[in-house]
Amino acid sequence: MSDKIFDLIIIGCGPAGLSAAINARIRNLDLLLMGSDFSSPKLYKAEKINNYLGLPEISGLELKDKFLTHLKKLEVPIQEAKVDSIYPADDHYIIMARNKTYRSYKIILAPGISTAKLIQGEEDLVGSGVSYCATCDGPLYKGKNVAVVAYNPEGIEDAKFLAEITNQVYLIPQFELEAEANLPEISVIQEKPTAINLPDNSPVVELENQQLEVDGVFIYRDTTPADKLIYGLELNDNHIKVDHKLETNFAGIYAAGDCTGTPYQVAKAVAEGQLAALNAASQIRKEKNKLS
Amino acid sequence: MSDKIFDLIIIGCGPAGLSAAINARIRNLDLLLMGSDFSSPKLYKAEKINNYLGLPEISGLELKDKFLTHLKKLEVPIQEAKVDSIYPADDHYIIMARNKTYRSYKIILAPGISTAKLIQGEEDLVGSGVSYCATCDGPLYKGKNVAVVAYNPEGIEDAKFLAEITNQVYLIPQFELEAEANLPEISVIQEKPTAINLPDNSPVVELENQQLEVDGVFIYRDTTPADKLIYGLELNDNHIKVDHKLETNFAGIYAAGDCTGTPYQVAKAVAEGQLAALNAASQIRKEKNKLS
Repeated sequence: MSDKIFDLIIIGCGPAGLSAAINARIRNLDLLLMGSDFSSPKLYKAEKINNYLGLPEISGLELKDKFLTHLKKLEVPIQEAKVDSIYPADDHYIIMARNKTYRSYKIILAPGISTAKLIQGEEDLVGSGVSYCATCDGPLYKGKNVAVVAYNPEGIEDAKFLAEITNQVYLIPQFELEAEANLPEISVIQEKPTAINLPDNSPVVELENQQLEVDGVFIYRDTTPADKLIYGLELNDNHIKVDHKLETNFAGIYAAGDCTGTPYQVAKAVAEGQLAALNAASQIRKEKNKLS
Repeated sequence: MSDKIFDLIIIGCGPAGLSAAINARIRNLDLLLMGSDFSSPKLYKAEKINNYLGLPEISGLELKDKFLTHLKKLEVPIQEAKVDSIYPADDHYIIMARNKTYRSYKIILAPGISTAKLIQGEEDLVGSGVSYCATCDGPLYKGKNVAVVAYNPEGIEDAKFLAEITNQVYLIPQFELEAEANLPEISVIQEKPTAINLPDNSPVVELENQQLEVDGVFIYRDTTPADKLIYGLELNDNHIKVDHKLETNFAGIYAAGDCTGTPYQVAKAVAEGQLAALNAASQIRKEKNKLS
């Protein structure tokens, strides 16, 4: 784990994340922007956007180009990474993304809004049987039995890793496995999960034609719902709850863009990204002045 | 007075007003945008703006051009007018701008933030001796004595009008009068006002070398402070107080942009203009559905 602590890590590369990044750069913060190259599918698939003032009748793809050009002009690189979880440390936060960890004093969550439907019962079992990160929670299941529900190939990789440390892995892929997929010691079940229950402290995965009693369930989607990233993040009607400074119930963690609520609009996301960055910058300056 | 009632009148042509206008147009509202051609001096004088996502390293003038082009593409004209005051009517509002009146169900205030310094005592006497509109309040002073403090030529025009109906007009111009200015029956006093007091129900204007006891004081600046436009508008630390829908304490009157508070940033103004327009549109649709 690197000892470097960033001033600010921004998670998400849609309009909110990018706007936060350019504003943080202008304020001279030591920042890291994590995500993948403009990850706002809703936006770049849009045929025509006409209500972002100054750029009339623009396609989603053109807007994406303009945004990324702005980012490049300010020399803000994108750290390609999918964040799995965030943990509070002493005076900062630890961010886990696959096998790498990062540290930061402030965080801006700008993951957008997930349209993925959760599995029935999933929500209630996060932290008591359901996990999204084998690197983080795999060791808890040494010698035990786990199910891996994989909506993407990342889940296959983690199933292999789990197979090395657990007793039995049931892999439940939600896409067609390649014929040459080499999965020794893994039971592949090509069925849809319909629910996850917890009758007696052990999760039971309900499938179309069977039930699987296991000790833990790992779920892999392209995006992890924002409130699953950090245990205890307060929501408000499925959106991340923020105050007028866009700060969440965790001091120093801000949220911006669609994840904080409607309207799901570019201008709103851009403005919130900026506001979160300005507030984080001002808070960092205050704290540094106190120390020096 | 025209009987036509607009769905929405937007007051102010900075980024917030323009953004409100394009969004209201897209939502098919019957709207009127009032102000003057991009009235955001702070912005168009800016040498370089770098934090409005998508338009890096742009000058204030270029940004102004982009904004006005957007407005033209959507065929939203600007009604050149300076609004003097707003009055609540039955189910709508009446807007007075010089000698014309307009009616609208909803209003968005986007006047920006005034940097004009008020005269000492001015604030406390609005509505009890201080006025900003001779057309509105002149008739109250029939046969009485008034002072006109004019920071712009508009004040001269109104002084002439007041001279016709009052007993005596003292004109206190704060700029050099043209030699040929024809001002019969008006006493011109070329001094600076330092305070306005109200010792016994009659205002006294304190000048550098004298005191003027009058019945009313009219003040003319390029912009009327937003909270002087409508009597009873609630403020919050010198900004217009709004709820999370950007609605003021008057139902149907919204505010957007710098006038609602910091940060004074383009992205924030653009987003608030949009949000106010969307909220007004949704409210209008609800009310129309109820009626039909």
